[in-house]
Amino acid sequence: MTYKLYYWDGIPGRGEFVRLALEEAGAPYVEVARRPGGTAEMLKLMSDTGAGTIPFAPPFLIDGDLTIPHVANILFYLGPKLGLVPEDEGTRHVANGLQLTITDFVTEIHDTHHPVGVSLYYEEQKQEALKRSADFLAERLPKFLGYFERVLNQNPTGRGHVVGKALSYVDLSLFHIVEGLRYAFPNAMRAIEGSVPNLLALHDLVAARPRIRNYLLSERRLAFNASDIFRHYPELDRQD
Amino acid sequence: MTYKLYYWDGIPGRGEFVRLALEEAGAPYVEVARRPGGTAEMLKLMSDTGAGTIPFAPPFLIDGDLTIPHVANILFYLGPKLGLVPEDEGTRHVANGLQLTITDFVTEIHDTHHPVGVSLYYEEQKQEALKRSADFLAERLPKFLGYFERVLNQNPTGRGHVVGKALSYVDLSLFHIVEGLRYAFPNAMRAIEGSVPNLLALHDLVAARPRIRNYLLSERRLAFNASDIFRHYPELDRQD
Repeated sequence: MTYKLYYWDGIPGRGEFVRLALEEAGAPYVEVARRPGGTAEMLKLMSDTGAGTIPFAPPFLIDGDLTIPHVANILFYLGPKLGLVPEDEGTRHVANGLQLTITDFVTEIHDTHHPVGVSLYYEEQKQEALKRSADFLAERLPKFLGYFERVLNQNPTGRGHVVGKALSYVDLSLFHIVEGLRYAFPNAMRAIEGSVPNLLALHDLVAARPRIRNYLLSERRLAFNASDIFRHYPELDRQD
Repeated sequence: MTYKLYYWDGIPGRGEFVRLALEEAGAPYVEVARRPGGTAEMLKLMSDTGAGTIPFAPPFLIDGDLTIPHVANILFYLGPKLGLVPEDEGTRHVANGLQLTITDFVTEIHDTHHPVGVSLYYEEQKQEALKRSADFLAERLPKFLGYFERVLNQNPTGRGHVVGKALSYVDLSLFHIVEGLRYAFPNAMRAIEGSVPNLLALHDLVAARPRIRNYLLSERRLAFNASDIFRHYPELDRQD
């Protein structure tokens, strides 16, 4: 069964967290919106007035009859099928809790450049973005990264992984968080990375996985850019 | 088994979505942080350097050995145990997708009064809040409410409920969304309510459930206030 992943074309975006899981598992999937006419097909599904389940926004996954929206929900669903989460129910909820903290982190990262309106351009909210980014770098970035560093440190079953004793989809998502933050806030990351050695080790471990390495070199991996969640505006980064 | 719910005392907050499910089901639970010394106990759990699973933030639920953070995650876990979600896996993921859209909506509602910094007071970001609230009321409020109205309309199995043919935890959460928005943005809600009749009918259906009615009249139900997610600042509401 080939999974159908629906996400905006042209950016890694939130779809990337799902892609990394599918790629690591070597699972068959298609990126519908990257095919000719695919974006129209995606929008049609979202506005279907006859459908029983309608996603609010991409990404969503279609697996047979089932339409599953939201990154954490997709990964909760795929985790056991892809062998990327421990199988017992309790640990799956622990993993989902971690993934939902990543979801919140991603929202806050996005809002550094879009603090007052999704429908406004960055240039229309640049002053507010400067204020929000300063607060983000001073308060939130150390809090979130420090949290995941602690979780890695305190994992009772597997040093080096965030949950359980083997690679999970949460590990893969944390890899992308580090990648994205290094792109968006290189100065701030240089200043903080010394305090999160376990997180960096996890990043490197994921980057060295053969399928992930292969994916990162492929055309399926899109580059970060100024339409994405992670954006590099030098004025929003730490000023050294 | 008595569930232990951990959430900040003094506000309905995000804990309310969990409370409504526990109350509707008549499930035994304690609100740890509302007991003497309970907030300290909650903070101690969060900073425990020996624990294997550490919540990033309240609310979290402890059920036996399991610590489960994040509203949607708690409800995903509790849903079948409380009889508040259809039992098949696919529909549980549909419900979880809807709950995660509510999560995003709640974040945007919160950010109307806190657009630039969680660590700053409202008064320190009032100008930005005016801008963000205007965008929220013009673009996001109609989009989110219209989405849930559509989902209610298109539910193939049960008119009147958002997922499946019986009351679910997502219905209960939507009740609280309507309650909170009426408190925070009474003018804007008066202007928009005519366009979302199914959502209002669902609100009234939930309010009339005997256990919910009983709960709303009890001391366990805290009033909305200016420390909560839903805040009533007249200047942020629609100006009629």
